[in-house]
Amino acid sequence: MKTVIGVIGSGVASAQECDTAEKVGREIAKRDLTLVCGAMGGVMEAACRGAKGEGGLTIGIVPGDSKTDSNPYVDIPVVTAMGHARNIIVIRSSDAVIAIGGSYGTLSEIAFALRLAIPIIGIKTWDVSTEIKKAETPKEAVDMAIELIGANA
Amino acid sequence: MKTVIGVIGSGVASAQECDTAEKVGREIAKRDLTLVCGAMGGVMEAACRGAKGEGGLTIGIVPGDSKTDSNPYVDIPVVTAMGHARNIIVIRSSDAVIAIGGSYGTLSEIAFALRLAIPIIGIKTWDVSTEIKKAETPKEAVDMAIELIGANA
Amino acid sequence: MKTVIGVIGSGVASAQECDTAEKVGREIAKRDLTLVCGAMGGVMEAACRGAKGEGGLTIGIVPGDSKTDSNPYVDIPVVTAMGHARNIIVIRSSDAVIAIGGSYGTLSEIAFALRLAIPIIGIKTWDVSTEIKKAETPKEAVDMAIELIGANA
Amino acid sequence: MKTVIGVIGSGVASAQECDTAEKVGREIAKRDLTLVCGAMGGVMEAACRGAKGEGGLTIGIVPGDSKTDSNPYVDIPVVTAMGHARNIIVIRSSDAVIAIGGSYGTLSEIAFALRLAIPIIGIKTWDVSTEIKKAETPKEAVDMAIELIGANA
Repeated sequence: MKTVIGVIGSGVASAQECDTAEKVGREIAKRDLTLVCGAMGGVMEAACRGAKGEGGLTIGIVPGDSKTDSNPYVDIPVVTAMGHARNIIVIRSSDAVIAIGGSYGTLSEIAFALRLAIPIIGIKTWDVSTEIKKAETPKEAVDMAIELIGANA
Repeated sequence: MKTVIGVIGSGVASAQECDTAEKVGREIAKRDLTLVCGAMGGVMEAACRGAKGEGGLTIGIVPGDSKTDSNPYVDIPVVTAMGHARNIIVIRSSDAVIAIGGSYGTLSEIAFALRLAIPIIGIKTWDVSTEIKKAETPKEAVDMAIELIGANA
Repeated sequence: MKTVIGVIGSGVASAQECDTAEKVGREIAKRDLTLVCGAMGGVMEAACRGAKGEGGLTIGIVPGDSKTDSNPYVDIPVVTAMGHARNIIVIRSSDAVIAIGGSYGTLSEIAFALRLAIPIIGIKTWDVSTEIKKAETPKEAVDMAIELIGANA
Repeated sequence: MKTVIGVIGSGVASAQECDTAEKVGREIAKRDLTLVCGAMGGVMEAACRGAKGEGGLTIGIVPGDSKTDSNPYVDIPVVTAMGHARNIIVIRSSDAVIAIGGSYGTLSEIAFALRLAIPIIGIKTWDVSTEIKKAETPKEAVDMAIELIGANA
């Protein structure tokens, strides 16, 4: 079984958030980890683009009802046609989650990760629990994810 | 079509939260509104008990795979077998939502309500957005819900 | 807890199928049972119209993301935004299911009912199992549903 | 984007069905296609084992709430916690579907594939529509899947 890192964040994100997300994607792929995300634009697309730039594998949990609803850097679209309810599938399929910035949709995902006790690392995201580990850089975030998964295993 | 008020909160709640929830349920039923909730115990059960005490109608969106997984005050269990993903169905089926106290599961529901722009009133709950209207009493909460639905219609 | 009868069939149905569905809805309401369906047109709308004509209660499990996506005879739209995946919620929420005519969507619902061992009665529907009880008239179908639920209880 | 073939069939299958499924999995991997399935035992496990024997990539759409609920030949478990409702995600994520034998759960998947007009090839499975293409051997089934995807593109 492959180790999977979820990347969550807004589908409409700032240039800085997208830059961070792309670097997180690169760090994930460099370590030969699989990236899972919500398949849309913004943070999700930037993270997938980063992972593909390093030859990584990207899984997109698509909210819409067609594979064409996913960003162009998704290798394998898992098509749910379940709208925002797909958020919880992103979380459940992750061994650890990295949250970047984020809107209310991201907050719902953070809440699910906390509820399900899946390790979560945040970069400038919602500050609703001390259980969200704070990272300053993409590299630090992915290192923390690996460490937390190890401690969990 | 009936007007539906969602009541959200933890399945394991304090005596005070349950007391508040029961009163919210009563106020909902007194106004001939339908109550929808997540079908479990704690805040959900107390709210249903209150509504049934006033002869109201209660819909429970069940996370498990059997009608027997719902609290005894649910008139109509809608069985999803989708675990926490049922949270978003509770929110989407509500014309307004009243949040009482709450844990991470409740936070996910609040986030969905904010994301979907469904009016939300909180009694001593998560303070993550100014869009959550604050109520001090059960009666005030239900009055605010009705007012917000009216403004929405 | 109320006893709930599911009515399944195509969203685009013949006049004869709709006539049958409306009579099934009437028979359900006459016996003070609650009707659940997939909230759309065709067989679903006709059944709800029949139930409302007798003052019954109708629950619609909506595939779309808005209450306005349900037919006008649904009292309580349960909004899933899950497309065809809502079919299984219709089945799971029924104490017995009556299938009228039907297309591939109905076949998926029949398959779920058979899989979950929920009593199913068919009027001119898919003939894929001897476990589907055959009824000739709406009244007979509802009578058989009640009998099967009793035997199940 | 990778081309994805869904393999569906019973979680408790005969030795002959499992042998067929393993060969189907091998043929899928030999052609560098990705296999998606329902993550459980029987036909699903045999297909994944075949694919892994040829170094292929396997995605399992898990009905339960944990990665450990998937068979040992799944590379990437997508955890839905949605029970049988995950069936439709298997279908929607497939460019073509191969059905082997099958019980009522498989029938629900076949019905969804027919409903969504996703190409479906059957090996000794439910005979409910002429739209299900019949294959005699695993190799023929995968060849037909590729041809149907091509005609669809």
